[in-house]
Amino acid sequence: MNIDTLSKTIFQKQSLLCVGLDPALEKLPTGLPRTAEGVYTFCSEIIKTTAPYAAAFKLNIAFFEVLGSKGWDVLEKLVSELPADALKIADAKRGDIGNSSELYARTFYETYAFDAVTVSPYMGQDSIAPFLSYPDKLTFLLALTSNPGASDFQLADDEVPLYRSVVMTSQRWPHTGELGYVVGATRPAYLADVRAHAPGAWMLVPGVGAQGGDLAAVCTLGVTPQGGLLINASRSIIYADGSHRYAQAAAEAAEDMAKQTAAFLPLQPRHA
Amino acid sequence: MNIDTLSKTIFQKQSLLCVGLDPALEKLPTGLPRTAEGVYTFCSEIIKTTAPYAAAFKLNIAFFEVLGSKGWDVLEKLVSELPADALKIADAKRGDIGNSSELYARTFYETYAFDAVTVSPYMGQDSIAPFLSYPDKLTFLLALTSNPGASDFQLADDEVPLYRSVVMTSQRWPHTGELGYVVGATRPAYLADVRAHAPGAWMLVPGVGAQGGDLAAVCTLGVTPQGGLLINASRSIIYADGSHRYAQAAAEAAEDMAKQTAAFLPLQPRHA
Repeated sequence: MNIDTLSKTIFQKQSLLCVGLDPALEKLPTGLPRTAEGVYTFCSEIIKTTAPYAAAFKLNIAFFEVLGSKGWDVLEKLVSELPADALKIADAKRGDIGNSSELYARTFYETYAFDAVTVSPYMGQDSIAPFLSYPDKLTFLLALTSNPGASDFQLADDEVPLYRSVVMTSQRWPHTGELGYVVGATRPAYLADVRAHAPGAWMLVPGVGAQGGDLAAVCTLGVTPQGGLLINASRSIIYADGSHRYAQAAAEAAEDMAKQTAAFLPLQPRHA
Repeated sequence: MNIDTLSKTIFQKQSLLCVGLDPALEKLPTGLPRTAEGVYTFCSEIIKTTAPYAAAFKLNIAFFEVLGSKGWDVLEKLVSELPADALKIADAKRGDIGNSSELYARTFYETYAFDAVTVSPYMGQDSIAPFLSYPDKLTFLLALTSNPGASDFQLADDEVPLYRSVVMTSQRWPHTGELGYVVGATRPAYLADVRAHAPGAWMLVPGVGAQGGDLAAVCTLGVTPQGGLLINASRSIIYADGSHRYAQAAAEAAEDMAKQTAAFLPLQPRHA
C-alpha cells in the first residue's frame, strides 16, 4: 500500500473510514478472555468484518504495549492479517533524537510491516526525518490533536499558533510527499487552516464519534480530489455491541460511517 | 526508589551520573552475538560494573522496541537487574490523549517496574496527567532537547519560547513534586532559564559526552541543595571500549564522570 493505492482504495471502497483498534481488556465483549489472546481474537474478528468498509486501520500501540511482549506478538499477528487494500497505521506518536528515531522508524516500517506511523513534532526535523526517508510510507505528524490539552501549547495565543508553525515548517522539509498530519475533528475551523497551508497533504482525523467531532464539517473542509482524509473512528465501531454480536455490529457501524463519508467524495479521483 | 531516596543515593554515591543504555546491535563489542541475547549480556554486564557510580540508569526504549517482542523480554529482565539504589528511567518520550496515556503510564510504571519515564508535552496536560498521578514516580517532561531540531519549535522566535512555556505551564499542573524536565546540556544558558522557572525540579540532562555539552557549566547552573540533576551519558560510557574489556572500561568511564559531577555537589544534602 502506498499513497497512490490509498487514493484508489478510497474510491473503490467509497470510504474515507479508518477503523481504530484500541482494544481495552476491560471492554472486551462477553465471552472473550481478558488476556492478550482475547485482544487478538477481538481485533482479528473486527478486521475481517470491517475490511470491506475500511480504507485504513489504525492500531493504537498503547493498548498492545501495556500487555508486555505478548502484546507485541499479538500486534505482529494482526498486522499480517490486515487486508492488502487498506493503509496499516501504527498510532505510536513517537519522536526522539535522530539515532533513536531511526530505530523507531525501523520498528514500525520494518520489524512490523506498517504503512504509516503517527509521530510527534516537539523535537523537530531530525526527529522526523528518519520516518520520512522511507519512500511510499506515510508519516502523520501531530498538528492539532482532538484532546482538551491541545489548548495548552498547540493553540497557545501567539501570532502564529504552534500547530500552524508545525505545518508550515514541516512543509519545507524534504519528502513532503510522504508527510501527512493528524488533525482533530473537534475543531473544524483549524482543520480548514491546516488544509490551506498543506493543500495536498493527507490528514488523519480522529475525534469523530465518541469525541463528538462534526463529520460533515470535517469532510467538507478537508476533502481533496484524491481523497485527502482518513476519518478515524475507534470506540463507536469496535464497541458498537458488547455481546457475541460484536464483530457484526462493528461491520454495521463501519458500513454506516463509510457511507456518510462517501457522500463527500468527488465522483472520480483526480490524480495530481 | 522515590525522590527522597534519589537525593540520598546521589550524596552517598557522590554522583549525578545517569548511565544511558542505548544498545545498538551493530555496536556490540567483539564476541557478543548481534541478537537480543547479545543486547541482554552487554547491558547486564555494564549494569553490574557501573552500578557503584550511577545514581540512575536510563534505558532508551527505541533500542529494545526495534528487536520486537524479544526486545521487551530483555527490557523486563534488565529492569529486574537494575540496582535498588539507582533511579530506573524509561526513555520512551510517550504522550497521547488521556485514555492512551493511562496505558503508556501503566506500561512503564506497572507492567515494567520503572521509577521514571520521559514524556513529550505536545498534547498538553491530559496527556501527561496519567503519568503524574503515580505518587513517588518521577515523570520527565521534554523541555529543551539536545538535538539540532530543538531549534525548529522549542526555540522558535516568540516572546515566550515554547520550551519556557512548557515549563511555566506545567509548573501550574497538579503533582509538580513528581514532575521533572529533560533539558539538553548543549545549551547551558537555556538550562539556567529552566532552573529559574522550576527552582526545585529534577532535570534529566542528556548531551554531555558524545554530543559535546559542557559538564561544568551544566552542573554549576543546574545543581540544587538536593542534587537536582541527573547527567546522562550513554555512548561515552557503554562504548568506551569495543573489546572484551567493555564492561570494565564502562566502569572506568562511569567512575571518572561521577567524580567530575561530584565536584559540583554541595557538601551535605539539604532537604526542603
